[in-house]
Amino acid sequence: MGENGKRPLDALEKARGNRVIANLKNGEKIAGKLVAFDLHLNLWLENAEKVGEEGNKTRLGTIVVRGDNVIFASPE
Amino acid sequence: MGENGKRPLDALEKARGNRVIANLKNGEKIAGKLVAFDLHLNLWLENAEKVGEEGNKTRLGTIVVRGDNVIFASPE
Amino acid sequence: MGENGKRPLDALEKARGNRVIANLKNGEKIAGKLVAFDLHLNLWLENAEKVGEEGNKTRLGTIVVRGDNVIFASPE
Amino acid sequence: MGENGKRPLDALEKARGNRVIANLKNGEKIAGKLVAFDLHLNLWLENAEKVGEEGNKTRLGTIVVRGDNVIFASPE
Amino acid sequence: MGENGKRPLDALEKARGNRVIANLKNGEKIAGKLVAFDLHLNLWLENAEKVGEEGNKTRLGTIVVRGDNVIFASPE
Amino acid sequence: MGENGKRPLDALEKARGNRVIANLKNGEKIAGKLVAFDLHLNLWLENAEKVGEEGNKTRLGTIVVRGDNVIFASPE
Amino acid sequence: MGENGKRPLDALEKARGNRVIANLKNGEKIAGKLVAFDLHLNLWLENAEKVGEEGNKTRLGTIVVRGDNVIFASPE
Repeated sequence: MGENGKRPLDALEKARGNRVIANLKNGEKIAGKLVAFDLHLNLWLENAEKVGEEGNKTRLGTIVVRGDNVIFASPE
Repeated sequence: MGENGKRPLDALEKARGNRVIANLKNGEKIAGKLVAFDLHLNLWLENAEKVGEEGNKTRLGTIVVRGDNVIFASPE
Repeated sequence: MGENGKRPLDALEKARGNRVIANLKNGEKIAGKLVAFDLHLNLWLENAEKVGEEGNKTRLGTIVVRGDNVIFASPE
Repeated sequence: MGENGKRPLDALEKARGNRVIANLKNGEKIAGKLVAFDLHLNLWLENAEKVGEEGNKTRLGTIVVRGDNVIFASPE
Repeated sequence: MGENGKRPLDALEKARGNRVIANLKNGEKIAGKLVAFDLHLNLWLENAEKVGEEGNKTRLGTIVVRGDNVIFASPE
Repeated sequence: MGENGKRPLDALEKARGNRVIANLKNGEKIAGKLVAFDLHLNLWLENAEKVGEEGNKTRLGTIVVRGDNVIFASPE
Repeated sequence: MGENGKRPLDALEKARGNRVIANLKNGEKIAGKLVAFDLHLNLWLENAEKVGEEGNKTRLGTIVVRGDNVIFASPE
């Protein structure tokens, strides 16, 4: 949308293969290696973990996050 | 979306026939053998059970989870 | 989606004519004989009843459940 | 969807011209004579009334219920 | 949908030019002269006013109500 | 929809270039000069300000309101 | 929509390359340099930070905000 030809999800394209962190609508933060994503912001994460308020982590392994839960996603 | 040709739901494709666990928006966790799923993340689970906070389980049997309830799904 | 050719709602196809129970987003459970359903998970139930916490039942008769209320549905 | 050729909203087709009761997501129950409905479950009701917890009724007259508010609808 | 050829929003067609009252999901009631509406139940009301619990009214003038806020609408 | 050929958003067409006030689902009221809008009720407002309960105002400048937040919009 | 040919998201087009602030439905405010956006209001922000009630800031870096979380966005 616009002259520079960039689209918002291109920011995630560059993050593929690296760790990203997703802030979810239920207040949780999920981090993991981004394997794939789509236009809905569905995310396939490997070695995912839930990141608690104090930085404590709970291992989740391989997960598919349904995109409509995401507030924002970010390379770690 | 992108060069590696992978899509987020491919992660579940590999899980078919095996047990997965789905974290739902109402806070419940549902585990079961994944028979089929679709792009909405509708899930057909066999031998499903609700997994409580302390790991206690309630048998649900065969269920169809409506995809819009899912936060994330994961091979167990 | 996938090699086995099964779709998640096929699980309900087998349940048609038999009783199913639907867990709804408002916390209610509705049981009844499944006459018809569609891709939205709209459900036509006969001899439906609301199932309370202690298993107490309230007769509802013939009902159409709007699919977007369903968390999961299951043969009884 | 399926062999018997029935669709869930056919249950309402038979109720047209008769009174139905709709349970809404805000907890209200609305009863009235069903004049017309559509695939969204939008409902045109005549002589509609709100039905309170103790069965007390508040007259609403002619109303159009927006379908996305409906949990389930039923012939009275 | 059905033999009589009526659709639910036809009930509002007859109300055009007259006052209607809309019950909204946030609990508010808005009354006004219905100038136009569409399939989403977007409403253009003139001389609109908010109707409080005790029937007290707050003048709003000309308004466009976004249809997804409507629970039901009714000729006054 | 109907004989008079008017659509609900035509009411905003007349308000363009003038100040409008939008009541949002989160309870906030936002006022500003309407530069552009679309069918989703996305609004481009100039010299926008948040209007508090007691009429106190907070300057926002140029803003784009996402239409799905709007309950109703109105020329001031 | 209308004679002047402007669309609401054109307001953001002018802001590209500059800092914008987005008010989100969960009450958070996120500021950052706008690299790209789309019709859903998905936003790619660089040097993003969360802005607290007292103006305190938390660094987020590069983020993609899912558009459906946005109430309004504004050039800073």
